[in-house]
Amino acid sequence: MKRVTILDSTLRDGAQSEGISFSVNDKLNIVAALDELGISLIEAGNPASNIKELEFFERARSLKLTNSVLSAFGSTRRKDTTVEEDQACMALLEAGTPFVTIVGKCSAFHVTEILKTTPEENLKMIEETCRFFAENGRQVIFDAEHFYDGYKSDSGYALEALDAAVCGGAYCLCLCDTNGGTLPQEIYDITKKVCSQFDDIDIGIHAHNDSDMAAASSVLAVQAGASQVQGTFLGFGERCGNANLSSIIPNLQIRLGYSCIPEEKLAELTSCAFRISETANISLHKNMPFVGRSAFAHKAGMHMDAVMKNSSSFEHIDPSLVGNRRRFLMSEFTGRAAVLEKVLKLYPDFDRNSPVINEILNQIKEKEYLGFQYEGAEASLELIIRRLAEHFEPFFDLVSYKVLDELPYDNNRSATATIKLKVNGKVKISASDGEGPVNALDSALREALSEFYPILAKVRLVDYKVRVMEPKYATAAQVRVLITSTDGTEVWTTVGVSKDVIEASWLALVDSIEHKLMNTGRY
Amino acid sequence: MKRVTILDSTLRDGAQSEGISFSVNDKLNIVAALDELGISLIEAGNPASNIKELEFFERARSLKLTNSVLSAFGSTRRKDTTVEEDQACMALLEAGTPFVTIVGKCSAFHVTEILKTTPEENLKMIEETCRFFAENGRQVIFDAEHFYDGYKSDSGYALEALDAAVCGGAYCLCLCDTNGGTLPQEIYDITKKVCSQFDDIDIGIHAHNDSDMAAASSVLAVQAGASQVQGTFLGFGERCGNANLSSIIPNLQIRLGYSCIPEEKLAELTSCAFRISETANISLHKNMPFVGRSAFAHKAGMHMDAVMKNSSSFEHIDPSLVGNRRRFLMSEFTGRAAVLEKVLKLYPDFDRNSPVINEILNQIKEKEYLGFQYEGAEASLELIIRRLAEHFEPFFDLVSYKVLDELPYDNNRSATATIKLKVNGKVKISASDGEGPVNALDSALREALSEFYPILAKVRLVDYKVRVMEPKYATAAQVRVLITSTDGTEVWTTVGVSKDVIEASWLALVDSIEHKLMNTGRY
Repeated sequence: MKRVTILDSTLRDGAQSEGISFSVNDKLNIVAALDELGISLIEAGNPASNIKELEFFERARSLKLTNSVLSAFGSTRRKDTTVEEDQACMALLEAGTPFVTIVGKCSAFHVTEILKTTPEENLKMIEETCRFFAENGRQVIFDAEHFYDGYKSDSGYALEALDAAVCGGAYCLCLCDTNGGTLPQEIYDITKKVCSQFDDIDIGIHAHNDSDMAAASSVLAVQAGASQVQGTFLGFGERCGNANLSSIIPNLQIRLGYSCIPEEKLAELTSCAFRISETANISLHKNMPFVGRSAFAHKAGMHMDAVMKNSSSFEHIDPSLVGNRRRFLMSEFTGRAAVLEKVLKLYPDFDRNSPVINEILNQIKEKEYLGFQYEGAEASLELIIRRLAEHFEPFFDLVSYKVLDELPYDNNRSATATIKLKVNGKVKISASDGEGPVNALDSALREALSEFYPILAKVRLVDYKVRVMEPKYATAAQVRVLITSTDGTEVWTTVGVSKDVIEASWLALVDSIEHKLMNTGRY
Repeated sequence: MKRVTILDSTLRDGAQSEGISFSVNDKLNIVAALDELGISLIEAGNPASNIKELEFFERARSLKLTNSVLSAFGSTRRKDTTVEEDQACMALLEAGTPFVTIVGKCSAFHVTEILKTTPEENLKMIEETCRFFAENGRQVIFDAEHFYDGYKSDSGYALEALDAAVCGGAYCLCLCDTNGGTLPQEIYDITKKVCSQFDDIDIGIHAHNDSDMAAASSVLAVQAGASQVQGTFLGFGERCGNANLSSIIPNLQIRLGYSCIPEEKLAELTSCAFRISETANISLHKNMPFVGRSAFAHKAGMHMDAVMKNSSSFEHIDPSLVGNRRRFLMSEFTGRAAVLEKVLKLYPDFDRNSPVINEILNQIKEKEYLGFQYEGAEASLELIIRRLAEHFEPFFDLVSYKVLDELPYDNNRSATATIKLKVNGKVKISASDGEGPVNALDSALREALSEFYPILAKVRLVDYKVRVMEPKYATAAQVRVLITSTDGTEVWTTVGVSKDVIEASWLALVDSIEHKLMNTGRY
């Protein structure tokens, strides 16, 4: 099985994406996700670009990675100086990564127009920079910027630039379609020529998606002989993004038989995608090939029928290969059946003809009309079913809460909440401050319940999301809050909706706590 | 210039997309948009599928189209019957469109497994159905379902199916990669063989994006000789969507010199994309090639610098060719050049070497480190520049605010805010209630300022967005608020960040108001 090395640049080129801004912790999380998936090389940033990058590389030194090796990114030295005198090169050296990626120009046009130097000086910049890092013990990948455009306008100079990198000691020449304007057929032809000319050097491909063809160009480059693919895991990147590794990897591995990540890790592709998108706070595009929520969703009745007879009719691969799953989408017609399925999952002996099923269905429809959404909040959905199926008494009743938020404030505590509850006929009042109103209310609620339900001490919130639903009403818009909680073992998500963000959070908090109490009994 | 016929199936295959449900009016709007853009063929639905489709075709008969012709879609007749006895075929005839698309199976495996009939009967179904519609005056396109899979497993039978369609009178054979699992190289090779075998018949390509390669496959099929491309304008469609015509058209027309739509219409590509996405109520993916908001947005400082020197360095085409535009984003990666450009836009005569430029750059970087982000909040960015460049006195100073939020509440007003400001040396206190804490604070602020700045009465908020940035700290996470305001003429967006959602909203509100006052002078 021929190996293709994957270099993920989510943290470097991906960070150029509009709307993405990684904290140092985000970056460490993403490194962990990529390492667990078995990505060989992680291009983790450009040490010369800003303070956060430096802090990251400092902290990254103590990381224990199982599958991945870090690379740092930088440019060839500036013109008319030495590598040692170039601060950016020195920062790259200090990053201390085993690999470095050095980007250099391969188009004579760009050398004279953008860099404003001579073609000869540019070749020296490439060679000297590669040599410096190779002599300092780094594995050097040369990112040949604008390679395809350069090759098309002046193939001689483009190849001289590659020669310079090889002379300097680069072990890999990565051909970049920097502005994304070369079509796959040309990518294939040019890559093939370069591969035959540099047959003892690794050749890589770095494609951008401006023509909607980055994944195809990457796969065709591999078919032409390339052995390294650079991209970003979810296609993040400037403009239209970089080549999307979450589709390139399964295409190469499942369809063409190359080895990119350990075979047993393929089934973690989808969960890795969700983890990275969550960290980036970008909702995963539902139609994204292989990993999107709709990637194996069937809506047309005829298609559902065919898939049930033979899945390959409308599924190009078995979704479980990449950890995704088949979904048959609900229409109004199938609503009752789906609800019944949920009920029977909780109560296997439930009477299928009970009028309670319709009560549940109606309550879900009403809530959805108000803006509740249960696709991502299964725990709240389960509570609706349990409340109507078991007619249970609530674990506590709210008498009232008051939350005071003020500016200026001291000691990081801008909010104070007081809460009055009735638990087992007893009235309980408590108060807490917090870093913001919802945090204060959450603390006060736990404080009030702790003597009755000590098990709640184990529950903590792990995620909190706010979505404004009808932006046209601006600050008086409906707000949907999703809260994800854990007790260390189970993880569950609940939802609340209101025009008041605090009330929406309250509703989700209450569901979260009721879910825990319902599933453990009363203490 | 060689012509490629475009068939848009947004209204038929695109309607299979999760989350899309077109009303009859939506469909008529989309037909109008596609006609104005100059799309040749619009596959507008499957008349046999539901009532809405029948109503649409009824109303479509009176449409006056300039560039487009409608096609209706249906399957070959059912097995073991005649075309005349097949109700779905009769509904297709009744639709009365000049073109019809007839889908039929080309894979012997699918014929026996899904259709449960003999390969011979399937060939008869294809031939007889095509003949029926051709004899009834229709232009018949034969959609060869599962063609590539069928060809790979039994090329003889796949070609017999095409022969049957030709015998029946089909003028175009459209080869379908129905489950999206064939890679571009194979698409190219197989299409080329079919084109040489059926050299007097139009050959088409119908690709799905399950492998992330539908656009590439479509373009390669044209390079192999195909003269019709089927797809959906924004890539809508079941699972991962259909081939995206908004990227295929400019690739074929700008880059390869084919004619798909009238040359002068290319510049309407982006506005057509927005119009269709608005009608479908799907927000246009910002990274979508050619037409997305970020498709020509530059964030990296080095890239901005290069684009300013020569746009082709990081732009594969001139954005105006497709009616899109270049944008420079501000971010932590932003270099001095981008900041300087912004400053010069506000103050054309500003000294380029002034130390204030660095002060501005540093303040932007510091704020971004705290979680501010200025890409979507130009007005807040402008305020940073103006404050440092002009050293102006603020229009008002906050002494304090207090916001009380409570449950239960009455009359929809869950929150009350009191605010104390200093304006022109005078202390002003005001209070307001509201539907939630931010709404109350917003009202109180306007109330307090109204006597000093009556012009603010014109300003209203049109959008309010909340993003939780490090969800792992749950309710104590940093929150970023974006507020978009208008005075009826201008629209501007401001940003605020804090652990407290109310404080973050406050910061964005203050920027919004200062922006307005700064741009109109003091009243």
